[in-house]
Amino acid sequence: MELWLFRPSGLSDGRSCFLGGRRVRAELRVAVLGATGYAGVEAVRLLLEHPNARPVYLASHSHVGQRFAAVYPHLAPFTDAVLGPMDADRVGDVDIALVSLPSRESLTLVPELVARGMRVVDFSADFRLRSAAEYRTFYGIEHTQSALLEQAVYGLPEMRRNEIRNAVLVANPGCYPTAAILALGPALSAGLVLPTDIIVDAYSGVSGAGREPSRTTHLAEMDGSLVPYSVAGAHRHTPEIAQELSRAAAHPVTLTFSPHLAPQARGILTTCYARLARSVSQADVEEVYRQAYHQEPFVWLVVDGLPNTKAVAGTNMAQIAVRVDRSAERLVAMAAIDNLGKGASGQAVQNMNLMLGINETAGLPRIAMWP
Amino acid sequence: MELWLFRPSGLSDGRSCFLGGRRVRAELRVAVLGATGYAGVEAVRLLLEHPNARPVYLASHSHVGQRFAAVYPHLAPFTDAVLGPMDADRVGDVDIALVSLPSRESLTLVPELVARGMRVVDFSADFRLRSAAEYRTFYGIEHTQSALLEQAVYGLPEMRRNEIRNAVLVANPGCYPTAAILALGPALSAGLVLPTDIIVDAYSGVSGAGREPSRTTHLAEMDGSLVPYSVAGAHRHTPEIAQELSRAAAHPVTLTFSPHLAPQARGILTTCYARLARSVSQADVEEVYRQAYHQEPFVWLVVDGLPNTKAVAGTNMAQIAVRVDRSAERLVAMAAIDNLGKGASGQAVQNMNLMLGINETAGLPRIAMWP
Amino acid sequence: MELWLFRPSGLSDGRSCFLGGRRVRAELRVAVLGATGYAGVEAVRLLLEHPNARPVYLASHSHVGQRFAAVYPHLAPFTDAVLGPMDADRVGDVDIALVSLPSRESLTLVPELVARGMRVVDFSADFRLRSAAEYRTFYGIEHTQSALLEQAVYGLPEMRRNEIRNAVLVANPGCYPTAAILALGPALSAGLVLPTDIIVDAYSGVSGAGREPSRTTHLAEMDGSLVPYSVAGAHRHTPEIAQELSRAAAHPVTLTFSPHLAPQARGILTTCYARLARSVSQADVEEVYRQAYHQEPFVWLVVDGLPNTKAVAGTNMAQIAVRVDRSAERLVAMAAIDNLGKGASGQAVQNMNLMLGINETAGLPRIAMWP
Amino acid sequence: MELWLFRPSGLSDGRSCFLGGRRVRAELRVAVLGATGYAGVEAVRLLLEHPNARPVYLASHSHVGQRFAAVYPHLAPFTDAVLGPMDADRVGDVDIALVSLPSRESLTLVPELVARGMRVVDFSADFRLRSAAEYRTFYGIEHTQSALLEQAVYGLPEMRRNEIRNAVLVANPGCYPTAAILALGPALSAGLVLPTDIIVDAYSGVSGAGREPSRTTHLAEMDGSLVPYSVAGAHRHTPEIAQELSRAAAHPVTLTFSPHLAPQARGILTTCYARLARSVSQADVEEVYRQAYHQEPFVWLVVDGLPNTKAVAGTNMAQIAVRVDRSAERLVAMAAIDNLGKGASGQAVQNMNLMLGINETAGLPRIAMWP
Repeated sequence: MELWLFRPSGLSDGRSCFLGGRRVRAELRVAVLGATGYAGVEAVRLLLEHPNARPVYLASHSHVGQRFAAVYPHLAPFTDAVLGPMDADRVGDVDIALVSLPSRESLTLVPELVARGMRVVDFSADFRLRSAAEYRTFYGIEHTQSALLEQAVYGLPEMRRNEIRNAVLVANPGCYPTAAILALGPALSAGLVLPTDIIVDAYSGVSGAGREPSRTTHLAEMDGSLVPYSVAGAHRHTPEIAQELSRAAAHPVTLTFSPHLAPQARGILTTCYARLARSVSQADVEEVYRQAYHQEPFVWLVVDGLPNTKAVAGTNMAQIAVRVDRSAERLVAMAAIDNLGKGASGQAVQNMNLMLGINETAGLPRIAMWP
Repeated sequence: MELWLFRPSGLSDGRSCFLGGRRVRAELRVAVLGATGYAGVEAVRLLLEHPNARPVYLASHSHVGQRFAAVYPHLAPFTDAVLGPMDADRVGDVDIALVSLPSRESLTLVPELVARGMRVVDFSADFRLRSAAEYRTFYGIEHTQSALLEQAVYGLPEMRRNEIRNAVLVANPGCYPTAAILALGPALSAGLVLPTDIIVDAYSGVSGAGREPSRTTHLAEMDGSLVPYSVAGAHRHTPEIAQELSRAAAHPVTLTFSPHLAPQARGILTTCYARLARSVSQADVEEVYRQAYHQEPFVWLVVDGLPNTKAVAGTNMAQIAVRVDRSAERLVAMAAIDNLGKGASGQAVQNMNLMLGINETAGLPRIAMWP
Repeated sequence: MELWLFRPSGLSDGRSCFLGGRRVRAELRVAVLGATGYAGVEAVRLLLEHPNARPVYLASHSHVGQRFAAVYPHLAPFTDAVLGPMDADRVGDVDIALVSLPSRESLTLVPELVARGMRVVDFSADFRLRSAAEYRTFYGIEHTQSALLEQAVYGLPEMRRNEIRNAVLVANPGCYPTAAILALGPALSAGLVLPTDIIVDAYSGVSGAGREPSRTTHLAEMDGSLVPYSVAGAHRHTPEIAQELSRAAAHPVTLTFSPHLAPQARGILTTCYARLARSVSQADVEEVYRQAYHQEPFVWLVVDGLPNTKAVAGTNMAQIAVRVDRSAERLVAMAAIDNLGKGASGQAVQNMNLMLGINETAGLPRIAMWP
Repeated sequence: MELWLFRPSGLSDGRSCFLGGRRVRAELRVAVLGATGYAGVEAVRLLLEHPNARPVYLASHSHVGQRFAAVYPHLAPFTDAVLGPMDADRVGDVDIALVSLPSRESLTLVPELVARGMRVVDFSADFRLRSAAEYRTFYGIEHTQSALLEQAVYGLPEMRRNEIRNAVLVANPGCYPTAAILALGPALSAGLVLPTDIIVDAYSGVSGAGREPSRTTHLAEMDGSLVPYSVAGAHRHTPEIAQELSRAAAHPVTLTFSPHLAPQARGILTTCYARLARSVSQADVEEVYRQAYHQEPFVWLVVDGLPNTKAVAGTNMAQIAVRVDRSAERLVAMAAIDNLGKGASGQAVQNMNLMLGINETAGLPRIAMWP
């Protein structure tokens, strides 16, 4: 088994590793299954610099037996980990498993991990939707794990921190849903806006489309391109956003969701629209959001400006801003996140920290590089 | 006066100019006042390659007496024009004047040009808003030219082609309004959607912010940035969009408009939302748009895909797509234009062509460079 | 056969095509074999707007029977051409064939076209290298067409205009070689610099790597990346540059060539270094280059500034600048071209124009869009 | 004085700050004079997350009395520091001062700080050049501080680690020089290459041009631009590179240096050329570099690939690769750094760590975000 174990290392000549000058005291052992996608490598990056945890097993479908740094050469000096198989029996003794697989594949692997006593943060959509019917509609297969689905907690700490702490399985939220729920949740919960008239318009950098090269993500085709896709209810995140906004509103929402791609690597900017339920002032709305978020370490209500994806790139932060459009009696609620940070791996590590009982903010970047 | 006259030239050694192999037969004489901004230089580019017209007077506030190619070095081999003053008396004998000044400045210059018998396409907002009150609210000064305002025609050929042909003064539409009106106009005119629930969400490349360097347009700050600005009714294009959509609907519209910046030089992508007035199918809506646009040389209804700013960059084309979101009973209408093409100088040349009675499409690029 | 014929068309409803207002009077018939790569589609773009020629046969390996606009949706309103097979017998009656295939594939197809009486501009490297031994070394196969190789003319009009006019087969130069030869050729021909100490350092946009998606060209991986590749003699363009510079110098050159990729779609910037053969002034060098290029319609000697890829994007222009570094007794010679313009399809159309006896500049863009 | 003191803070409601979960135990007190430029804000970012140091005084010319987060809004939740004046008497009790001013301004301020007993890392060029004559030539003024200049240590730890430890004043290297010296230093020191035939060709992201908006750094103008500037000995970093390479070679070098700009925020890629002094193999050269750098925590010799600016963005790492071009008997030596990391503020913190006797790598990022 040792073959697959991760041996923390320094430069490629084998000296030991002092990341940022901190000698690593990393007692908690973490597996990353699906380490070679963008969410996977971002999780590994965070874990390599985490003060309390370290990656001890990295698994992949397609690169078993290869060095992780052969897949991501920029990591060559920082890890000599070798990729193991996506096999629950090979994971070994870990405190938690982060599973970053395409949706539908988690449906098989996650139960096997749980059955072996592991706690899991699953990045896929397989345990996010409460409704098996919606799962079938949007993912095209039957959901075969209703018992486990029942147990799973939707991992947005700002909404369900305590449930996450005790969860065996956390369904890590999608990138677009994270931004949309953080932007609109407080207004819906407080009854400031009607649940029946919600629009979520979002733009994402292309890392959201994954590492697999495609025409869509080809720089020559994408440079200078602003382009919608899967609009008008076609995107798989639509039912997820609706489910969680409905929960916040305690009422089913009616939602139009329009994702777009923008020519950059990282970042989601979401602009949401909802009709005001009653006459409220800008100050009233801000106060509701301040109450909702002032204790949150990773949500940042921008009052003097507006959110910007660059201000959160590489971090686990969410920037939120709200504006009342008086003449239209509408709320405009905006959020900026890093789709691989708060939108995926950052949030997964935040969930992991909560589940393992360590500091919720441990190992999570908050200050973006600028420029 | 000859000092300021434009002398068509070839390479910098003075050989004559065969642009694209066509010997220039350019009988119509055009002045461009405000030639050194981005809309100005784009108009000059189009005129330098126009088969029937040529720029004979280029004026600027700040660079009088300098060669135009000193301001735009990439034009050095193609023109030795010297910039003249922004003075109606110096323009001389022209068939038409294109005026590309900041809003409020046209209010003074345009009447002087008209008084000297010139026909004018004005790029500013000064003659776009019918309501002097709204002009005052959004531009901060009194509108002093009500007679001329009365005469001015809003220059969107797809909506007012015949009025444009005979106009003395055409108010060239704003970039965001062009995209929004082309996207939503047919649905509102046909009564497919309610006028009372309109959202226009738009992203623009930074050339829309002009050539003057600023923090916002600094590549180091903007690279990786998706950022809203002037949301919730604050942007000056809000009343212009509302005015023209109201006209299309024959009913006052209620509008929320949210502009954003994206990290690219050119292009506007607009995603518009409106509530369906009655139950219509995707096919019904497409048929309405097809009827509206099938004769239009510069509007292109995309049926199999979705609009993309790159597909129209450098051209005068608008790409339009519509989608019915059944579950929300909402129409999503999208448009992609080049903010300096159909959103400014391309449209101005289209208007000029109509006013001068030449082929409407003369000198207007339609095929984008790819990639 | 008519199935494959190109029917010039206007908008998708079948109206006829008035590109830029010019009614197309395109008598010369052109085939493009290998139309779906980036050089192919750029050639088609130029031909669709060419005043004297039109594409009548478009061929592809992989998309036979599909509409060209299904491969390049941005062309949907402008052509309803259907892709034919890469078969010499299917090309039919054309005045010239442009062949844009990967190197080694032209070795088979081009002789078949020539045997059927066609004149050919070949974009590949298969007929560029005089030495069969070098061809074998860099392309890994035997050159089987020595007779045709003997006939082929290296298609850099600035160096071999007259030979091109009469050629049956023109080997269209590579993108890096075009920039390097235009930058250094005059200095070597005039004996200003030593042939034995030449360095060519070049950066290219990623369209040079083709349309096939890959990790290298994935926006998420390439954004923010400046990266060398195939340095120190490993790149296939090395012997081509050396061959043509040796010809210019009338002496074998010693060359180090280092290509790099930069995060943009188009453009090559080349900075070349050569040791001065004798003491010359900046003015002397400029005079040599002015003599070499002052009659050239597509070469532009920049004296007051320095070349910029943006200034030539989309055009067939080459910007050249030279600087004497006195303290090091070295010449720095720079060139900017569009790798798909003067570096590929623009140059191919320039060669085609020469071969067909029409205006050399016909249909070739010279003014770049700015910004 | 307390007014200007930096009070570490958490979110904007004043909760205390747990960056990345580490409770800040920052005993060493650091002033940053010139905090509002890009090198300044990068130094502040590193200090805010440094395990042993914290910024206690931030000074600016132009924003005195403003909150630092008013200048850099992305820092709002992380600091409520107020900018103090650029006045040595106001700095107060600090362990070290980082001075990031334009060249020529340090000549006045640095001596005042040193006179007050402070140790200084100066980011400017004012104490880098040994020759007062060259300083006059390239910076246009007399060097008035010859005694202090004598004391100053050129702060490249890989070359002068021990001198830096004991220095009162460290002249932090320029960005281009850092890359060039790391790339060529070992080969020159080992006598592998001739000192008389050196070329340094470099491309930089636009953050190197500073935060002040300009036409050059305007996204609309720079997007798609690859452009040389100050070539052929005109750039101020030329004598600095020559000085340090001469020191490495123990012989005066002859140097041609050509900087360029590329369309990205961060990163320098340098490709250097030198003629081999004797016949050496690729393996020989790699062994020399391995010996030079295998103990270095921030230099990474890439053997299987080539350097890439993205792989070091946001970090203090330098990627180095070397290739022997046999046919030209030339060495190609490449380096990638982040111009604001190892090229400025990262290196300054590395120098600070050495001077203060703490772990050299403390607080310095090594793993780049990917993608």
